[in-house]
Amino acid sequence: MTERVVVLAGGVGGSRFALGVRSAMGDGAELTIVANTGDDLWLSGVRLQPDVDSIVYALAGVNDAERGWGRAGESEHVSGELRKWGAGWPWFTLGDLDLGLHLARTGWLREGLTPTQVIARMAERWPLGARVLPMTDTEVDTTVTVRNGSSTRTMHFQEWWTRHRATLEPLHFDNPGIRQALPAPGVAEAIAAADVVLLAPSNPVVSIGPIVAVPGIGDALRITSAPIVGVSPVIGGRVVRGMADICLAAIGVATDASAIASHYGSRDRGGLVDAWLLAEEDAALAPTVAAAGIRSIVTPLWMRDEPTAKALAEAALVAARG
Amino acid sequence: MTERVVVLAGGVGGSRFALGVRSAMGDGAELTIVANTGDDLWLSGVRLQPDVDSIVYALAGVNDAERGWGRAGESEHVSGELRKWGAGWPWFTLGDLDLGLHLARTGWLREGLTPTQVIARMAERWPLGARVLPMTDTEVDTTVTVRNGSSTRTMHFQEWWTRHRATLEPLHFDNPGIRQALPAPGVAEAIAAADVVLLAPSNPVVSIGPIVAVPGIGDALRITSAPIVGVSPVIGGRVVRGMADICLAAIGVATDASAIASHYGSRDRGGLVDAWLLAEEDAALAPTVAAAGIRSIVTPLWMRDEPTAKALAEAALVAARG
Repeated sequence: MTERVVVLAGGVGGSRFALGVRSAMGDGAELTIVANTGDDLWLSGVRLQPDVDSIVYALAGVNDAERGWGRAGESEHVSGELRKWGAGWPWFTLGDLDLGLHLARTGWLREGLTPTQVIARMAERWPLGARVLPMTDTEVDTTVTVRNGSSTRTMHFQEWWTRHRATLEPLHFDNPGIRQALPAPGVAEAIAAADVVLLAPSNPVVSIGPIVAVPGIGDALRITSAPIVGVSPVIGGRVVRGMADICLAAIGVATDASAIASHYGSRDRGGLVDAWLLAEEDAALAPTVAAAGIRSIVTPLWMRDEPTAKALAEAALVAARG
Repeated sequence: MTERVVVLAGGVGGSRFALGVRSAMGDGAELTIVANTGDDLWLSGVRLQPDVDSIVYALAGVNDAERGWGRAGESEHVSGELRKWGAGWPWFTLGDLDLGLHLARTGWLREGLTPTQVIARMAERWPLGARVLPMTDTEVDTTVTVRNGSSTRTMHFQEWWTRHRATLEPLHFDNPGIRQALPAPGVAEAIAAADVVLLAPSNPVVSIGPIVAVPGIGDALRITSAPIVGVSPVIGGRVVRGMADICLAAIGVATDASAIASHYGSRDRGGLVDAWLLAEEDAALAPTVAAAGIRSIVTPLWMRDEPTAKALAEAALVAARG
């Protein structure tokens, strides 16, 4: 029986996978979700943590399952008014319930709480059945540098992603300050003590990428005795969720389940993963993954609902056992 | 014909009076409202300017006339959620539309705009028929010091007013930093160039008090050639709007139309006002006001609607002409 599982996760795909893992784990097992905070942003003086919130909302069961993000029963009174003021980011939707959390968080941060402590407060309201940790308490918001005529322009990831729908060709991604950032308290310890570490099928570049780029997390992953199992975010040569292919292209990785496995790399060869879950549609790529020194497991990857997410998580946990 | 009128005003009473003055003035006349900013506060990282907003909402015609404050058609989705988080100030109601403005303002302030420039932006959306200026661009939020057992405790005015409903006995009020604060651009100039200056029937202690305590505003009022006419906020020994009597008691002024006139003082004797509008219910106090060196005018003071507010403003403008 697997007892201690750590999942590295981005937002929507990560939260769905986290739900599956929670279902797949037995009573008494400990689940720690390490959430990407590269998506975080300051908007009109308010701090947003989209991936953290997606994960917390999903685990709390208050998410809008149909829409795939945000709160169920949401309204947008404030957002509508902000648009009328031409203020903030009119292209960034802020639900009213969601904004309640952003304001609460901002107030707590200004009182001196860390992001880790803020999430702990969120879990007081909503029992999550898992511990959710930010990858770091330091602000390392992702930036994107794009071509701008003969020159370049750097903007916040959310501006590129949400406003420009990733249509501006990215040259590179960065997380300023990440080299000096420490893992949030508990993250490195959880990885060190884990029986299994799972990489959710999240965006390898802007979701998993920032998490593993925190030096102390990279180090913890290198030295943990736990097997590390990744789940492909690409099925049949297509990204499961929007626009990750554009991010992959920017770092020179093909939108191909085996190319992403090679990007993460085999632990035996100084990389990140021991095993890799491939979709049945990509079974033909299994030898390529194996050639990269990574054990491959072919299994259904689509998470259509909680049972399929649970089945995927079970496959990942089985894969971890070798 | 009066051409240039300056009104010093607090929130609800001030905005009603401002509407009346705007109605009473002819075409081509210039109305400047100098708004109290002592009520301003930071709440969960967001900047609120309650008196400024009350005045702007009223002039824009988007205020909730029935409730007396805030926006018409308001909802409270975010406030409800903040209460569930136990965050912010659960006793301070934040309407969703109102919050849209607070967030827009906060974003603009963080971009480097001054409060004066923020209000100018508000007036781009809503033609106000008047220029609204904050008394100062400096933060001088009012504090209240109350007895706390054998010691004292100092809190933000809004906490005392809204949370404690002014039930804690105030020892004194303060606006930290106000001695160094400059009038907002245009305020001293408007007072210098005015044909009439009117003091709205606002709270003398925490609405008009902070405005005239800005040194450059006090100086401008002393030297302007314009007559200064005050309107009593007390009718028949009762404050028109809640709890001002508690503020008056704290500074040793009786809740009495003539006592407030004496508190402001006669300009001939180094004080603030040339003339004072008394309610008909207080006609017997006219000799006391006169004895203080202030010309008194007895007139209906209740502002039940726009016509009665206009009539009051007309009386004030007539009084200014001597």
